[in-house]
Amino acid sequence: MAKDKKQPRPKAQTPKGFQDYFGADVTARNDMLRKIAEVYHRYGFDALETSAVETVEALGKFLPDVDRPNEGVFAWQEDSDWLALRYDLTAPLARVAAQYRNDLPSPYRRYAMGPVWRNEKPGPGRFRQFYQCDADTVGAPSVAADAEICAMLADTLEAVGIDKGDYVIRVNNRKVLNGVLESIGLSEDLLLNPRPMTVDEAAEALYAEMVRRNIEKISRADVLRQVDKYDKVGRDGVLALLTDGRLDDSGAFIDGVGLSNAAAEQVLKFLTAKSDDAALTLQNLRDAVCESAIGAEGVAELEAIAGLLEAQGYGPDRIVIDPSVVRGLGYYTGPVYEAELTFEITDEKGRPRNFGSVAGGGRYDDLVKRFTGQSVPATGVSIGVDRLLAALRAKGQVGGAAQGPVVVTVMDRDRMADYQAMVADLRNAGIRAEVYLGNPKNFGNQLKYADKRASPVAIIAGGDEFDKGVVQIKDLILGAEIAKNATLEEWKDRPSQYEVPRDQMLAKVRAILNGQG
Amino acid sequence: MAKDKKQPRPKAQTPKGFQDYFGADVTARNDMLRKIAEVYHRYGFDALETSAVETVEALGKFLPDVDRPNEGVFAWQEDSDWLALRYDLTAPLARVAAQYRNDLPSPYRRYAMGPVWRNEKPGPGRFRQFYQCDADTVGAPSVAADAEICAMLADTLEAVGIDKGDYVIRVNNRKVLNGVLESIGLSEDLLLNPRPMTVDEAAEALYAEMVRRNIEKISRADVLRQVDKYDKVGRDGVLALLTDGRLDDSGAFIDGVGLSNAAAEQVLKFLTAKSDDAALTLQNLRDAVCESAIGAEGVAELEAIAGLLEAQGYGPDRIVIDPSVVRGLGYYTGPVYEAELTFEITDEKGRPRNFGSVAGGGRYDDLVKRFTGQSVPATGVSIGVDRLLAALRAKGQVGGAAQGPVVVTVMDRDRMADYQAMVADLRNAGIRAEVYLGNPKNFGNQLKYADKRASPVAIIAGGDEFDKGVVQIKDLILGAEIAKNATLEEWKDRPSQYEVPRDQMLAKVRAILNGQG
Repeated sequence: MAKDKKQPRPKAQTPKGFQDYFGADVTARNDMLRKIAEVYHRYGFDALETSAVETVEALGKFLPDVDRPNEGVFAWQEDSDWLALRYDLTAPLARVAAQYRNDLPSPYRRYAMGPVWRNEKPGPGRFRQFYQCDADTVGAPSVAADAEICAMLADTLEAVGIDKGDYVIRVNNRKVLNGVLESIGLSEDLLLNPRPMTVDEAAEALYAEMVRRNIEKISRADVLRQVDKYDKVGRDGVLALLTDGRLDDSGAFIDGVGLSNAAAEQVLKFLTAKSDDAALTLQNLRDAVCESAIGAEGVAELEAIAGLLEAQGYGPDRIVIDPSVVRGLGYYTGPVYEAELTFEITDEKGRPRNFGSVAGGGRYDDLVKRFTGQSVPATGVSIGVDRLLAALRAKGQVGGAAQGPVVVTVMDRDRMADYQAMVADLRNAGIRAEVYLGNPKNFGNQLKYADKRASPVAIIAGGDEFDKGVVQIKDLILGAEIAKNATLEEWKDRPSQYEVPRDQMLAKVRAILNGQG
Repeated sequence: MAKDKKQPRPKAQTPKGFQDYFGADVTARNDMLRKIAEVYHRYGFDALETSAVETVEALGKFLPDVDRPNEGVFAWQEDSDWLALRYDLTAPLARVAAQYRNDLPSPYRRYAMGPVWRNEKPGPGRFRQFYQCDADTVGAPSVAADAEICAMLADTLEAVGIDKGDYVIRVNNRKVLNGVLESIGLSEDLLLNPRPMTVDEAAEALYAEMVRRNIEKISRADVLRQVDKYDKVGRDGVLALLTDGRLDDSGAFIDGVGLSNAAAEQVLKFLTAKSDDAALTLQNLRDAVCESAIGAEGVAELEAIAGLLEAQGYGPDRIVIDPSVVRGLGYYTGPVYEAELTFEITDEKGRPRNFGSVAGGGRYDDLVKRFTGQSVPATGVSIGVDRLLAALRAKGQVGGAAQGPVVVTVMDRDRMADYQAMVADLRNAGIRAEVYLGNPKNFGNQLKYADKRASPVAIIAGGDEFDKGVVQIKDLILGAEIAKNATLEEWKDRPSQYEVPRDQMLAKVRAILNGQG
């Protein structure tokens, strides 16, 4: 009886929020990552591959992005410890930089590529496993390290197939914004500490600090939150949000931060400082930070970065100082950079728009502090692998499907050794080829199979052909064209099938493939 | 007060049983996998990359290896579902083959490469995350599919750098062993069902079956377990284990299975059937299976495989019928194959021994049955990525460390733009190069850094050099040689540092690198 109880069959289903990648989707990404790795290697960056699993203790329980506190990690208990899947490649770098600090060169340049996992609610375009591709320099306080990463990012984009003129890397500096905030009387930043604080801790610290000071009603965090919306709501929107508030698109009223108009204008001076002339941009920034020492330091850093890049031939057509880049300013502590693709694509509603951001990064100077107590300067960039791949597709730099194999069909199953010898000849010549391995009885199925495989050429040989020492070679691409244009006179008599001696099979297949290319 | 309670610092530690890979260890593996993928692609196999996470339901809770029932998976609960990290690449293939069965070509050739996870107790050489590299053909009942994978495996080994003569691929067939067992009266196999049964279910089924039949005291599983020890204990050992038992190395007595001597000899006839002449091997096998129909089928399959491979030029120096290959026979249902590297290495005790197995596979015909109820034939191979990489290292086919970068030192931090321009020149010429980004104050630290980076060349330029328009180029490899041989006359006057005009820097560095190579 016990043997009879049947379990229901398991469902064959990709887990929710995860994806399967087939064929060219896998190889196109690998090709792109290989090209990126070549550039990183040339810049002296070393590969690092940590395991997918970290202790929760080493990882920190929460993601740094305070705007999405619901994001979490996949974690499970292991005896008394908790283990989790990494949510990015920076947290493992912090662990490695602390763990091997006596063995690694300093500065340590490393790159890492691989999947990361986020325990988000799945949604359209939101995946719970995706690739990241990071390069960071640990232990280099000089902004030369930031400039180097910007230059490397430009080289990387060009190496994978984004032409000069189709991208721009914008550089900003958190210290300049800090200077502006200082100049309008917001003197201390409570949410700067990036990695180690959980959302609750940060809120607690903020509250404690406000109680202690009991004077400052407007925090930098409030201002930062609004500044971050500059991309979306523009100059006037941010001005309203920094002062008295505004109606949003849904008609709801969003409270303003309560800055004076003069103070808000000072912030906007920063956001709109960009000019085509870098010297003028820097002068605008000097005006925006007034007397602030930290602000002056930030402007000097930007000036140094611009100078270093200019010396290496990266002009403002490729890398530009642009204070309107505010994404991530709340997270980073110094220079911030973002790569934007400037060519137009058509969005889902058919409207043209710029492709947008594909990579971003900046300086964060507390990388290993939570492990060692010591501040170690670090700066790094993360490339959005899926976004960049989509960009290459949009530019036609990635073939849709990889070329299908030449299919050797099976007319006579006793001749399998002969068919195998044919594919061996083709493969040895570097041509992708396979013999049909399904049930050969129905020849139509074999041609349908070749079609599904996107085969360019089929080889056909039965008893007659073997007797005569020949093979039939079918040009499937041309065959499809002819079928499509069957009514047109000029197509009528074009042959798409050729009989050639067996020993000329390879040459003929190669000729057809070259012609199709 | 609340702010004062300090949390202890997290430990910066790789989780137990996991590994971090640095530099050349990462790139050497990636290079090897890329070469393997090229061969697989040429054979018409398509890449597949599933996510690391599967539902426990789709995965099945336990590993198929019944000898190690303690092995498990990393799993966690997600609302009402359980998710887990994949423990191999075959289970996800089964899920994909069932899920996309209407869209995939049939037969479906796919390859997959990536990490898998095992929740084992960590131990020496036992890791909880490691790479697998699989190729499988789903939906091809013909042994031509098995022969193809053997040929592909040979091509793959040669493509990554294992020479002809340094490897052999051995082919066996489970059906032949079944025939032998049938011929000695063991007619039904209870543990053949590979994937779906958990260890407990299998034990339960075995027990129920034995109770039902109440006659057969010796199961095939008993015999298989002993046959599996052939590699270790040899002919006489297996003979004893199949009959009356034997003393093992520790002096403990291992019970025998209880076969008659005649029956045990029949099994040994199978195990020792191999001859240098394939025809003779096949004749020996025919003798071993007697009248068994399944046995005769197995021998015919081996004969067909040998014929197909011969026709493609894979002689017995590369791929050979060898019935002593018994690893995995309990798991597979038809042809079984294993790639062994035959060159000698020195083991940890200094004794020479063959490198051994680096890949194995075979036919398993129930791939998607637990999802769909339908049997679908499949055959495939898995390469032990770490083993093969170790073999390449042993053969000197993998450089120890990748070449370090040229290091441009910093004598004058105000000249950073000039130093950056130097590395840009080198990189644009394809030479790996970096500027020193640490604190430049202590020049000795810069040379120590170059040493740690395994730099072949250092560039030095201070105020004097800039005034004269020259740079100093230090050959660090030669410099190290000279230091080692400082007392030898012939080394005394060899210069390892050269002063060259700035515009000849690139040419001189290239000349030094070429000389070092």
